[in-house]
Amino acid sequence: MTLEIEPRPLTAKAFEPFGDVIEASDRAQQISINYGSATRFHDLARLDVTEGGGHAIVSLFRALPLVSPLLEVFERHPLGTQAFIPLMGRPYLVAVAPAGPWNAAGVEVFRAGPGQGVNYRRGVWHHFLLALEEQSDFLVIDRAGPGDNLEEVHLAVSDQILVRI
Amino acid sequence: MTLEIEPRPLTAKAFEPFGDVIEASDRAQQISINYGSATRFHDLARLDVTEGGGHAIVSLFRALPLVSPLLEVFERHPLGTQAFIPLMGRPYLVAVAPAGPWNAAGVEVFRAGPGQGVNYRRGVWHHFLLALEEQSDFLVIDRAGPGDNLEEVHLAVSDQILVRI
Repeated sequence: MTLEIEPRPLTAKAFEPFGDVIEASDRAQQISINYGSATRFHDLARLDVTEGGGHAIVSLFRALPLVSPLLEVFERHPLGTQAFIPLMGRPYLVAVAPAGPWNAAGVEVFRAGPGQGVNYRRGVWHHFLLALEEQSDFLVIDRAGPGDNLEEVHLAVSDQILVRI
Repeated sequence: MTLEIEPRPLTAKAFEPFGDVIEASDRAQQISINYGSATRFHDLARLDVTEGGGHAIVSLFRALPLVSPLLEVFERHPLGTQAFIPLMGRPYLVAVAPAGPWNAAGVEVFRAGPGQGVNYRRGVWHHFLLALEEQSDFLVIDRAGPGDNLEEVHLAVSDQILVRI
């Protein structure tokens, strides 16, 4: 039986088991800078990328919009965090499952607003980018370095997850 | 006599002495990922943040638009790079001068497009965020850690720089 999930709004509290929400919120430390012309929302993501000689790199991902609302593959990065920040002012979906052995019953799907990035903790299962509407660019901060930093799980057809969008 | 500068378009080549342009360009290594649904423009900025026990942090800057086209203050970070990526699809200005002793004759002003971020090298003089049009958010990747990582130069009135915008 295919599991069906309705996305819920992305909040820092709901996402806490999976990582950080990168957003200009009242929760953040706010510092007035540049002679009052800007506010710094300080240190919003716990980057964890130095395991096994790794370091942080900055890349851009250009993603096609979601074709099918059926989730078939999840991945995780055992050696480092991975952050995504939307650059085009469009919402997107975030599908995650807890770190540890794969458990489809733990899948949650969030709808991220255009001003919200996410930073997946090491080992948190996640679907790859689920852009909506149009082709979209995301800034990505993840780990480069030695070692195999990608694991995937391919769901059997009967275990695939239908997102109600 | 006030120096007047006309901004020129931001290109990787012109900006090379000052740092990296973070953009999805043909110069980047492009990797097809996520079963063909996305392209990764790989490793676009040389983060240099570990001096003196530092590490990379991710913050958001919310900047008011430029009030005056007169540049009065430049700053530099001797201990680490600082990257800015625009999140709201609006152009902005980038004013820089070479690393080393302050030299007003070396100031250059670039007009960055909405799809272009910049990563200032350690020690490169730069004006703080010069948002245009409206209040704008930028993702910032810079250094946290011990030590004094900010130096400023305040220009005498006669040395201020007028940007023709």
